Amino acid sequence: MTKIDFCGFNAIIEAIKKIETDTILFVVDHQVLSQYKDVFPLLETDYGKKVIVWRAPNGEKVKNFEEYQKCCEFFLEKGIHRNSHLVVCGGGALSDFGGFVASTLLRGINWSIIPTTLLSMIDASIGGKTGINTKSGKNLVGTFHHPQNVWINSEFVHTLPEREMKSSMGEMIKYAFLSEDIHKRCLETFNLNEIIKVAANYKYEITNDDFKEKGNRKILNLGHTFGHALEYIYNLSHGESVYWGMVMIFFLYDRSDLLAEMVKIRDIFLIEKKDAPWLNKEIPIDRIMELIEKDKKASGKDSIELIVIEEIGQPTIAKKTFSDCRKLLESHANELKKFTL
Amino acid sequence: MTKIDFCGFNAIIEAIKKIETDTILFVVDHQVLSQYKDVFPLLETDYGKKVIVWRAPNGEKVKNFEEYQKCCEFFLEKGIHRNSHLVVCGGGALSDFGGFVASTLLRGINWSIIPTTLLSMIDASIGGKTGINTKSGKNLVGTFHHPQNVWINSEFVHTLPEREMKSSMGEMIKYAFLSEDIHKRCLETFNLNEIIKVAANYKYEITNDDFKEKGNRKILNLGHTFGHALEYIYNLSHGESVYWGMVMIFFLYDRSDLLAEMVKIRDIFLIEKKDAPWLNKEIPIDRIMELIEKDKKASGKDSIELIVIEEIGQPTIAKKTFSDCRKLLESHANELKKFTL
Repeated sequence: MTKIDFCGFNAIIEAIKKIETDTILFVVDHQVLSQYKDVFPLLETDYGKKVIVWRAPNGEKVKNFEEYQKCCEFFLEKGIHRNSHLVVCGGGALSDFGGFVASTLLRGINWSIIPTTLLSMIDASIGGKTGINTKSGKNLVGTFHHPQNVWINSEFVHTLPEREMKSSMGEMIKYAFLSEDIHKRCLETFNLNEIIKVAANYKYEITNDDFKEKGNRKILNLGHTFGHALEYIYNLSHGESVYWGMVMIFFLYDRSDLLAEMVKIRDIFLIEKKDAPWLNKEIPIDRIMELIEKDKKASGKDSIELIVIEEIGQPTIAKKTFSDCRKLLESHANELKKFTL
Repeated sequence: MTKIDFCGFNAIIEAIKKIETDTILFVVDHQVLSQYKDVFPLLETDYGKKVIVWRAPNGEKVKNFEEYQKCCEFFLEKGIHRNSHLVVCGGGALSDFGGFVASTLLRGINWSIIPTTLLSMIDASIGGKTGINTKSGKNLVGTFHHPQNVWINSEFVHTLPEREMKSSMGEMIKYAFLSEDIHKRCLETFNLNEIIKVAANYKYEITNDDFKEKGNRKILNLGHTFGHALEYIYNLSHGESVYWGMVMIFFLYDRSDLLAEMVKIRDIFLIEKKDAPWLNKEIPIDRIMELIEKDKKASGKDSIELIVIEEIGQPTIAKKTFSDCRKLLESHANELKKFTL
């Protein structure tokens, strides 16, 4: 359903011109807009269409009910119709948000994404999950609504701040464990543009087969169950938390082979070695379990589905009761607190 | 996809017990709750499930962003999961609202409706349209999300206030023009329960065939294009406006046969004769056209799709430019202002 294209600014403009609509609604990250002024003629171009631009606050700040209402009322007041087409230009938070707006304006209009961060290119843009945050947690209100196009322009990546790049690497490495093909490409001839392409296509295939996350799509949660807990406890970025979430699960399953592989891939991605956030501290088992039990991925009242790797490219879903999960942590706690990678 | 059942309170309770979930989220009209206390053991019953009740303000007052946020945050805070099931008990405004909540909570949970007004039984409950109102107009934010069950309990109808009943009749009569079967049943052996049943089933079939209103579903807009304009100009109820919208379109198409049929059916439904809202006044053509041009049903920048009746049971869609539509009004204005039914 979604068409993924890897192209430069000019090709994106040409593609937008060709959308069969007379009205384009842009949802653009405020910061992206000022940062890429020179290379960003998108909004000034004459498309021969009515163009309405909504400037969004940066990052997660946009993902709430208030901004959702503001954005909907803004577009409605400017005059739109069911055949209007919404284009998001920004990172993963903004495409989650913009997709939610598109899926509910006039009961759903078409939309497309120009992702501007590495993380959104390989993850958030693909798969049609949309959402905003609530008092009770992230992404708890949203929809499934596939974008029509994802236009990936790697120019954005080359100008990304260091921190942003690092924060994406956890998700990148994840794909190298899920897919043998991606793993091979990383090891053989590493080329970031190429990896973005295969990672985006890989996620696209998985999510197309299982749009509403009833089955196989769950494997994309590799590293996320412990990762989300670590993210809260140690205040990590999303990418870091997925990285350490994978390290933790490999360690708990006594998979020194996968841990060795992790080091290899990490070096290829030029990620510098850093101490594990838990190193030389007590492992906060109660807090981890509390967060895991609240996780959306809890499959019922008393169990969670962990994603584990049998072999490179062979992820499986392991259903664990909360009590088994706790035992696994307890039995490894002493070694774990001395372990880093 | 939706299962429509005609049943009493006890059967509804049994049906709710059988839903495969451990958590029921009730969205209940505040007024319904106090009005039907005696016959309404739904919320006090022990289902063997966790039951969370959200009391909604009455009528259209609930259909806005603020109540939407409140309701979502309320349920999330109480602790819900993807397999929770939302049940709306109220009129059409509340099922529009509750359906929107259900379609976006945790990216969509299942839901069912217990409609408490005649209008919602035959119209709003059926077809999966959900929505809230915005500053720019009604139902401009929403989704398509079929309920799993609609439980129609005619006890509600028999205790409906007179005004509520009357307000539903326009939609009821509409069905008698759209469907030969409903027309026949009205003329032969009129039984309100029976008519509710066939009308609900008729709408169900139409909307199932054309869930997202790309084609045939549009015939349900019979009487609505002029009706919506009349609703605003003369401050009519929705049902009245659909009734006079039909009268107007039959008149403009010189269909005295359909107008005669209208009188026949109106008498069967025991609707008292009332003067047309436009009688003996200038027909406000500019205002009507202004409202029609803003209508969501406008099929493009300069045209609208009118629903016309060839023969009883044979509606068709007539695409008219705004200018042709205006000419039609102008050529009939003098006779129309002297006409009532």
